[in-house]
Amino acid sequence: MDADTSNAGRVDSVLQKIERTRQARRHKFYLHDEKITLSHGSGGKSTHNLIEGVFAPAFSNPLLDAMDDAATFRVDGTDDIDHRLAFTTDTYVVSPLFFPGGDIGKLAVHGTINDLAMAGATPLYLSVGFILEEGFPIVDLRRIVASMAQAAKEAGVAIVTGDTKVVQHGKADGVFINTAGIGLVRASWLMGQAQLEPGDKVLLSGPVGDHGIAIMFAREALDIESDVQSDTAPLHTLVASLIEAAGEGIHCLKDPTRGGVATSLNEMALGSEVSVALDEQSIPVHPEVRGACEILGLDPLTIANEGKLLAIVAPGVADTTLQAMHNHPLGRDAAIIGTIQAEPPGMVFLRTDIGGLRVLDMLVGDPLPRIC
Amino acid sequence: MDADTSNAGRVDSVLQKIERTRQARRHKFYLHDEKITLSHGSGGKSTHNLIEGVFAPAFSNPLLDAMDDAATFRVDGTDDIDHRLAFTTDTYVVSPLFFPGGDIGKLAVHGTINDLAMAGATPLYLSVGFILEEGFPIVDLRRIVASMAQAAKEAGVAIVTGDTKVVQHGKADGVFINTAGIGLVRASWLMGQAQLEPGDKVLLSGPVGDHGIAIMFAREALDIESDVQSDTAPLHTLVASLIEAAGEGIHCLKDPTRGGVATSLNEMALGSEVSVALDEQSIPVHPEVRGACEILGLDPLTIANEGKLLAIVAPGVADTTLQAMHNHPLGRDAAIIGTIQAEPPGMVFLRTDIGGLRVLDMLVGDPLPRIC
Repeated sequence: MDADTSNAGRVDSVLQKIERTRQARRHKFYLHDEKITLSHGSGGKSTHNLIEGVFAPAFSNPLLDAMDDAATFRVDGTDDIDHRLAFTTDTYVVSPLFFPGGDIGKLAVHGTINDLAMAGATPLYLSVGFILEEGFPIVDLRRIVASMAQAAKEAGVAIVTGDTKVVQHGKADGVFINTAGIGLVRASWLMGQAQLEPGDKVLLSGPVGDHGIAIMFAREALDIESDVQSDTAPLHTLVASLIEAAGEGIHCLKDPTRGGVATSLNEMALGSEVSVALDEQSIPVHPEVRGACEILGLDPLTIANEGKLLAIVAPGVADTTLQAMHNHPLGRDAAIIGTIQAEPPGMVFLRTDIGGLRVLDMLVGDPLPRIC
Repeated sequence: MDADTSNAGRVDSVLQKIERTRQARRHKFYLHDEKITLSHGSGGKSTHNLIEGVFAPAFSNPLLDAMDDAATFRVDGTDDIDHRLAFTTDTYVVSPLFFPGGDIGKLAVHGTINDLAMAGATPLYLSVGFILEEGFPIVDLRRIVASMAQAAKEAGVAIVTGDTKVVQHGKADGVFINTAGIGLVRASWLMGQAQLEPGDKVLLSGPVGDHGIAIMFAREALDIESDVQSDTAPLHTLVASLIEAAGEGIHCLKDPTRGGVATSLNEMALGSEVSVALDEQSIPVHPEVRGACEILGLDPLTIANEGKLLAIVAPGVADTTLQAMHNHPLGRDAAIIGTIQAEPPGMVFLRTDIGGLRVLDMLVGDPLPRIC
């Protein structure tokens, strides 16, 4: 079997897997709600249900159905895997607009860069769409715009097209920002939620929960002193170094933003019809974040991150990948946190610190709305 | 002089023109406002000031500085004009969400398709970002999503990536939608706001003001019976037929949305350092729209359209282009409405029905906020 045939076979098998899991998910996640609730924006189970119950069936096409954070395609209409583009979008409604470690503008640039990076792409160009509320101070807008410009410059991407809308006072909340992004895919193999194989190792690039907890502490209602800062950061150079180190041993990259590590791994388990076994002790969490979660009854694994990534890699390159993470400033505290197993498909398990085993579900409800 | 040298010279001259007008505009449009007002979202003069005073200086780069509705570029980093991609974004905050002739979903698909088409591109892929207000009925969301899916299918584009955010009740207005789009540029020459030449003819593809007036009539506060329907339509097949008919005689295409024909032509006059002389009698306006404008003291030339385009073409191909418009269902009522002149740069003039001559400015203020 030559490389081309093998590749074509692999593409077919992936497409079949996507189709099977799509049908399974659609059956499982029929949407019964009559009105939108905050939990539909959590990034967790309700968001999943809304996507599978409303958006996915209406917009269905092979690129969307893969349900990765970025779509990848060639613009010449061929199926060739090389020289694909990645395309993604995210809207940012974070509250408050300014928080320790960042602001909505920085987040809007980093978040879309990261979705491109997770597709193995070098980010090239961003679009930006603003929704401004009547009465919003222009000095704050300038501050946000300057932060976006700086974040884009530091990451080597250009904001090349944009749009501005204004709505009446009371019909928005200061400013909402959408960014979409285009990147050039450097990975010449398939990566994504449908690519996990039993035996693969799960790597996490650093401590979880910083962004979500920083936002929570920044809310006016909470008068708590804290040193927790958002971890917002552009991850494309970390991804580039992982690709260089581990090549096609990298099966899937994902930044665990809304819904946290728990939700991201559940989505992958569903997308690849595998299970994920995690070792709780190995998952890095800053003590202050762990403390806040204990007080508030939150699970750090469901809290949003903006500068971390999960890498699912072939067992043979796990140590190389971990070493590459440790050598990068954004991966210094990386760890191997789990393993992919064949059975039971679609589930995530956590071996707890006290030796128990529990099912780790997606985020249910939304304890921290408007986190990004 | 061979073709390559001539082309390079033309690119240089265009870049110089963009740089000169950018500096002139920046000087002219310094932003003095302290807070965002509805007129900053009008698409007219205040929007222009906001863009030139806040966004353009912060994000400045050669692609953005051209200030066309879509950025065009090659992803391989070369300057070659062939095989460019077009990339654009628009956010939709129209109120009401459903109106005669369309809805926010249809508008969000058509609008972004049209921005790609105006760059001479075949639209390929769209992204969609939803902001949903807590409490929004899912039945209405399904209706909007179905409308988007149908509009995309009819236009032959795929929605390949998306995002959903939810904000608290009272922090948005039902639903806001952002779409970004990627297209493949079919024009192998430069088109855009910097490309107008004295002697060029100004063509308009049909009657103006339908969309804006339809929205106005649809507002609950106005209890007026009317047959006016939004003209929302995807213009990419019309553009394809114009490109086929007139080739590089087409210097600039623009869909006169927010701010209407008056604002679009003023932007072009500024971008190309030319003046535009319009003949009021030749500008098609439906009688009902004209009547509504007279009663309400509005100028149909500043009212938004969603299915019309302006084509600025070399005089030698004006008749051919007009004929191509007439042969297309979306250009049946097209007309030649004016001429590009060298002096005075940056101005638009209207020869009125009664024989006078008046300056036609961009839209000032915002008589019809949230039109798209």
